[in-house]
Amino acid sequence: MHCRRCVKPKRVSPNAFSKITDHGCILADSLPNISQQQLHHTPPTFWLFYLKPKLTVLHLHPLKPTFTRLGSFWLLSGRSAVMAEHMSQSELDYPFKLLEYFNGFRVSKVIFSACELGVFDLLLRSQEPLSAQHVAQELGTSLDGMERLLDALVGIEILEVEKTDGTALYSSTDVANLYLAKGSAKSLHDMIVYQSQTIYPLWNNLVDAVREGKNQNEKTFGLPAEEVFQAIYRSEEDMLKFMGLMNSSWVLDGHDVVTAFNLSGFQNVVDLGGCTGALAREMAKAYPSSTVTVFDLQQVVEVAQKHFSQENDAIVFQSGDFFTCEIPTADLYVLARIIHDWPEEKCLTLLKKIYDMCAPGGGVLLVEAMLFENRRGPIMTQLFSLNMLVQTKGRERPPSEYTHMFNKTGFKNIQVCRTGKSYDAILAIR
Amino acid sequence: MHCRRCVKPKRVSPNAFSKITDHGCILADSLPNISQQQLHHTPPTFWLFYLKPKLTVLHLHPLKPTFTRLGSFWLLSGRSAVMAEHMSQSELDYPFKLLEYFNGFRVSKVIFSACELGVFDLLLRSQEPLSAQHVAQELGTSLDGMERLLDALVGIEILEVEKTDGTALYSSTDVANLYLAKGSAKSLHDMIVYQSQTIYPLWNNLVDAVREGKNQNEKTFGLPAEEVFQAIYRSEEDMLKFMGLMNSSWVLDGHDVVTAFNLSGFQNVVDLGGCTGALAREMAKAYPSSTVTVFDLQQVVEVAQKHFSQENDAIVFQSGDFFTCEIPTADLYVLARIIHDWPEEKCLTLLKKIYDMCAPGGGVLLVEAMLFENRRGPIMTQLFSLNMLVQTKGRERPPSEYTHMFNKTGFKNIQVCRTGKSYDAILAIR
Repeated sequence: MHCRRCVKPKRVSPNAFSKITDHGCILADSLPNISQQQLHHTPPTFWLFYLKPKLTVLHLHPLKPTFTRLGSFWLLSGRSAVMAEHMSQSELDYPFKLLEYFNGFRVSKVIFSACELGVFDLLLRSQEPLSAQHVAQELGTSLDGMERLLDALVGIEILEVEKTDGTALYSSTDVANLYLAKGSAKSLHDMIVYQSQTIYPLWNNLVDAVREGKNQNEKTFGLPAEEVFQAIYRSEEDMLKFMGLMNSSWVLDGHDVVTAFNLSGFQNVVDLGGCTGALAREMAKAYPSSTVTVFDLQQVVEVAQKHFSQENDAIVFQSGDFFTCEIPTADLYVLARIIHDWPEEKCLTLLKKIYDMCAPGGGVLLVEAMLFENRRGPIMTQLFSLNMLVQTKGRERPPSEYTHMFNKTGFKNIQVCRTGKSYDAILAIR
Repeated sequence: MHCRRCVKPKRVSPNAFSKITDHGCILADSLPNISQQQLHHTPPTFWLFYLKPKLTVLHLHPLKPTFTRLGSFWLLSGRSAVMAEHMSQSELDYPFKLLEYFNGFRVSKVIFSACELGVFDLLLRSQEPLSAQHVAQELGTSLDGMERLLDALVGIEILEVEKTDGTALYSSTDVANLYLAKGSAKSLHDMIVYQSQTIYPLWNNLVDAVREGKNQNEKTFGLPAEEVFQAIYRSEEDMLKFMGLMNSSWVLDGHDVVTAFNLSGFQNVVDLGGCTGALAREMAKAYPSSTVTVFDLQQVVEVAQKHFSQENDAIVFQSGDFFTCEIPTADLYVLARIIHDWPEEKCLTLLKKIYDMCAPGGGVLLVEAMLFENRRGPIMTQLFSLNMLVQTKGRERPPSEYTHMFNKTGFKNIQVCRTGKSYDAILAIR
């Protein structure tokens, strides 16, 4: 019974522990505090198992486990063997998953803080691995703090570290370069800043949000709970942050939601509450013969044109409030993350208004993160729904609730498409 | 090529998506937005894969994948197949793991808030599944907020849900009953309250902690940065919360660290900074013939005796400050999560003081979460080390740094034991 990566079974002294994680599995009989006797008499006991640079602790009954290679991974099987990430029995012995959940906020803040401090931008620019001292000096931080931050980023596999002549040198991963550096094509930088500076403090009042059933803008920021967008758009700086968030989320999901259905038959498209125009641009790219207009509040349109416009922009902007103003005529209205901001009554008012503007054959593309009907997920959408509680007057819904609202306002032909990513789409035709 | 759980290959319409997650895999060709053509021409594409009640999205090159059953799990293999949790290539296409990290703080707060509101206690007491309405009414919260919270707890597999006559009924899991309910033998309730109310807000200032290289007690709570324990023990209520945290962490790791070495030869054991006595009691239980004394600040001893004492307590308390007072003589000194509070200089002073009190053959059991020498983990310890930055003047260290300090103060025989859980142990003998 030995690690198949090692030619011979390997016994290690306790002191050598951290060294052997560099080349494979650690067998249970090499663990200092588990004797062979315990191995036979007290199942479940421990197996330590090495996957890539990540050390995972597996619990299993020590009866004839086998190692199997699958791609670049080692799998452990045997009677009662379970994968580390999906323990149930053994979670009762030691709640690894629960402790991971408790640490969730720390992991978030490690990434958020590194992003805010510019760690990923510096590593991308430098083109070569940097010491903690170099990074700290460039970014004007303490060495001690930066060293701990960099190490934690290595621990969650966002950075890599190599020791050269006793100095630890840190470099970025492709994932960090692509999504966490500020200038990259798929940068989520603005989303991160918003989550770190606005959403994280709001969630500190989740207990009160659940108790009161309303958002925590007042307790967190001293802002009125009733006027959600007055709170979100409280200053040009805050508006810019929020718009950055919206903008960067369509970097990820924009293409998938606009191509969830073939929309090439719609000539005039209006994106209601289209914010920076990020999704509208995806739409214009996917359907180059369509005309795409973003309709949003005047101050939003101003900021969008000032900070997010592009040369030869394929879209146009028009300002107005879709609740109080007349909305432009269109063949297709896009409602992307709009309905989830409002209680059902206001949603029905808006959908009815759109229905009345629609010619037969025209319709609505609704884009939201959608819950499963069975209430069991997706977890990200369930968390978004709590987020709507904490910050707005809305909620996330399963497809049946949207279908119900569309039917109620007169739309007939309704198709649901799940993308398998964060945001899904519904096409409703008048 | 089909799900082996289903007798026949299953094609589903997009609308039925959320329903089929109840009985197995979804094949790629059933995904609405991926045509067969895309399947052959645009690898990597998607596979949706069902593991227990959790829906996982797998990316892989669609070349002859196979399904294998392993215990209660289905594994997917094939050329370039990767496990959902360990994607690297595909993480570049869509950063699922990264988004999970961003949501970490939300997951933490979902559990913390449910704990603070008493959800797990109520479900444990009730003995039968309860509706959201029932839970909300009993706990005095909004129905809407409670419903979303309960659903998110189902999403992370901490609660279970079943629909009966159209009503969703929620019940607890064994893990929640054991670790999250307040009265349970292994309750982590106090640890959770401390993390939620004290640590979470402190971490909102991580950027400043890294920049300044010092704790954020002042910015977060208006407390002096210099006097760490004056901040932690600022009121009896705060002291009680902190002591609850310490107490509940030894529920998990106490037995393992006191049995990491055979300590039965030590007659008189003194736990320096032993707080509530939780670890000392584990010591007394493991070595019934030893005498175990907790030595801590007078106000700590008072609170410990008032709130954490037990009938026929196997341990005794003695009060004093181990930096300024004379420490009691002993054969073995326990230093559990003490050294990590302080900079090296103060640690050396304390270790020297202990060395001078030790007879030859006597020693120190040092208990800490220990970093790997290669700086790559464990992630939990790396996060603890950042926690020490944000809250104290200390840090977590790898075994070599403790060994170095022990050697420097005169200790000779030094053994390191990793437990594979959160806390490790070093035994140093004079």
